[in-house]
Amino acid sequence: MLHNDKLEQWDRDNFFHPSTHLAEFARGNLPNRVIKGGSGCHIEDRDGNRMLDAFAGLYCVNVGYGRPEIAEAIAEQARELAYYHSYVGHGTEASITLAKMVLDRAPDHMSKVYFGLSGSDANETNIKLIWYYNNILGRPQKKKIISRWRGYHGSGLMTGSLTGLELFHKNFDLPLTQVLHTEAPYYFRRDNLDQTESEFVAYCVAELEAMITREGADTIAAFVGEPLLGTGGIVPPPAGYWPAIQAVLDQHDILLVADEVVTGFGRLGSMFGSDHYGMRPDLITIAKGLTSAYAPLSGSIVSEKMWAVLEQGTDENGPIGHGWTYSAHPIGAAAGVANLELIDKLGLIENARNVGAYLNAEMHAALADHSHVGDVRGEGMICAVEFVADKKNRTFYNASEKIGPKIAAKLLEQNKVIARAMPQGDILGFAPPFCLTRDDVDQIVSATRQAIKGILG
Amino acid sequence: MLHNDKLEQWDRDNFFHPSTHLAEFARGNLPNRVIKGGSGCHIEDRDGNRMLDAFAGLYCVNVGYGRPEIAEAIAEQARELAYYHSYVGHGTEASITLAKMVLDRAPDHMSKVYFGLSGSDANETNIKLIWYYNNILGRPQKKKIISRWRGYHGSGLMTGSLTGLELFHKNFDLPLTQVLHTEAPYYFRRDNLDQTESEFVAYCVAELEAMITREGADTIAAFVGEPLLGTGGIVPPPAGYWPAIQAVLDQHDILLVADEVVTGFGRLGSMFGSDHYGMRPDLITIAKGLTSAYAPLSGSIVSEKMWAVLEQGTDENGPIGHGWTYSAHPIGAAAGVANLELIDKLGLIENARNVGAYLNAEMHAALADHSHVGDVRGEGMICAVEFVADKKNRTFYNASEKIGPKIAAKLLEQNKVIARAMPQGDILGFAPPFCLTRDDVDQIVSATRQAIKGILG
Repeated sequence: MLHNDKLEQWDRDNFFHPSTHLAEFARGNLPNRVIKGGSGCHIEDRDGNRMLDAFAGLYCVNVGYGRPEIAEAIAEQARELAYYHSYVGHGTEASITLAKMVLDRAPDHMSKVYFGLSGSDANETNIKLIWYYNNILGRPQKKKIISRWRGYHGSGLMTGSLTGLELFHKNFDLPLTQVLHTEAPYYFRRDNLDQTESEFVAYCVAELEAMITREGADTIAAFVGEPLLGTGGIVPPPAGYWPAIQAVLDQHDILLVADEVVTGFGRLGSMFGSDHYGMRPDLITIAKGLTSAYAPLSGSIVSEKMWAVLEQGTDENGPIGHGWTYSAHPIGAAAGVANLELIDKLGLIENARNVGAYLNAEMHAALADHSHVGDVRGEGMICAVEFVADKKNRTFYNASEKIGPKIAAKLLEQNKVIARAMPQGDILGFAPPFCLTRDDVDQIVSATRQAIKGILG
Repeated sequence: MLHNDKLEQWDRDNFFHPSTHLAEFARGNLPNRVIKGGSGCHIEDRDGNRMLDAFAGLYCVNVGYGRPEIAEAIAEQARELAYYHSYVGHGTEASITLAKMVLDRAPDHMSKVYFGLSGSDANETNIKLIWYYNNILGRPQKKKIISRWRGYHGSGLMTGSLTGLELFHKNFDLPLTQVLHTEAPYYFRRDNLDQTESEFVAYCVAELEAMITREGADTIAAFVGEPLLGTGGIVPPPAGYWPAIQAVLDQHDILLVADEVVTGFGRLGSMFGSDHYGMRPDLITIAKGLTSAYAPLSGSIVSEKMWAVLEQGTDENGPIGHGWTYSAHPIGAAAGVANLELIDKLGLIENARNVGAYLNAEMHAALADHSHVGDVRGEGMICAVEFVADKKNRTFYNASEKIGPKIAAKLLEQNKVIARAMPQGDILGFAPPFCLTRDDVDQIVSATRQAIKGILG
């Protein structure tokens, strides 16, 4: 029970919240929201409001809230050994066990896992490893990184540069010069409305090839992409996209980083998005689903091909100069082991696949015909609804109308359902915990229809 | 109890350890070290070896191992609510309380705290905020960052660039171009042996001023420094250094970032190194001591002056485009609250000051006369011993002789005392938990003398 009635003042006076309008929050014009507990797909705030969290935190609490199995694993590790570092061959039973569990689940050609804290720092590690790799191979000029517009890869300086969203660039002097952005595989937002899906894929491939030709393949180190675009709009790739991109990368000896922070460990109804879409990555970024957010932990899974060069590098140069104090933190590792065991035990990936398919089908059935719904799309336990001002001509609303945020706010206020207004475009995103039931789906879909009606008629 | 005898094979087959010789570890030529528990200043490995950890993990387990107060706070939070995000004004009782506790302890002119995971990501946040600040103030060209050779500010791309150590640059294409390095305030390693300490300070200041003049003050955004150089050699600043540097920065409207990842919350025997040395920072980086490493948590403490501009920025541009999924993670916040309470309750900062003074005095008394000990230095509960090939001419050993690492290895093997061979130079570092006793000091000093004798005679 919360026992301090000064909490709100403390919050406004001292706490710098991420992704917040700082002035409005400090002035008291935005609510302070204190969350105090959760169970399954629901969270509860200090005023006793119970909400259905159809975005699983920030698409991370994949097993749902309040899992005693994970809480007790954390508690036990905290009592036994809360911390020791993992430098120079040190580890704990939990971190070693988790490394094995991750590789058991990863695509067969992957070799080792480096553990960090967040998806951002894992992508930071990835870029360092890519640059190191090409230096060891004697290709010091092969360093540029291609990512996609609307990709999301973090909010640091380099990782925010990989990210292809305006909110994360503007006023921060990003992207840094080492990063190039190519076409987003976002069929619904194609420039040429006459293109078929396969023509659009050919266009994305041609754009990538043109960029490689323009820059020179000997200057391009890697291509970074999420299997399914996440924060950029929750967009599954058009059919055939990844095999076609993979072929171009292979031809030019360009590494592929699959950013599976959102998709890893079951979000698409399969263990990894790489397998799901036929990618063959050299690095896989993992975070959220690795621990279901019960403790901070991320990872960079390294392929056999890259690992061989990293070994060569340390033979030539000694220990690798990379590490975070909290790499492979015991609490995160214990949470990860318990989380992956729980996913298996409860068959949660299968549930994500089945109930996720129901969620996507019901959302489509309920909304696709609405005159301001331009697209309903998804895969596994993730789904998005995109709004348009005019359906026939596919014209979008002006961002200043805040259609997406208004619908999300209405959904919360009226129906106590949490969805996310994605940051670029009027797109309502759903990524519930994997333990969602069909009854929950019915509630979410009906509430969404009602909220849309309230705002758009 | 560890129950899996395959643990070593799993480790070598799957786990990419930080700062490790990857090839030698994979081949089995470096020990795998599995730590299973700890209490006070001691840790224990799976084979039952008990070691006195005179480096507190990576100078982070400040309250010592096995504190039930923190373990139970973590356990309780894990049961109640392991995760919810802190975006858009969300928080938990623990994260809000900790924000207040941090500001209560920080220098008076500080205003808010942003919580991240690691010291590296907090410095990443700092650079983003500095660039944003100057963009909002209409000074888009004022962006370069000055740090010092031998500074340590992280191991990411930008933060590894701020770091001024070869190990973290070589083969990684760092430093990035936005970062400039100036003289380290490392009196013992001054080029001109005839300089007095105050002449050396004047030299450091003149070097900084020359750099500012060369680059143009209107292109320099900030100066980043640890109050006391940490990983670069554990070097207290020469007397008068910080006030003299501060004056130069003030004159040119250059922000100061105090990286207090090592020094924050008591390491120097005072709450912050900024107060200790007369710095007036615009940003303070905190991490290790914030939770004593029981859970990953870092922070960027923002001054009133900067905060006002950040508020202006969101009034002009809307919500700030920065955030980590695990910002202000509830488990880290709960650990932080319990840790800071415990430090107060047990008077651990006072103990760090008193027993730390004893450690430094005893180390000096035991070693300063040794013909290969060039310098014994420290402050509060941190201490370093630097070795020289020839004392009179202050000539150093060749790095390939690995004098520092050999002494650290001997200390561990022979006496089960953990010290750290710092990465650049032959420097043995000590930064024990604050609960160290005088008996522990006697043991550490005697063991160190013995290990040095074993290697250097």
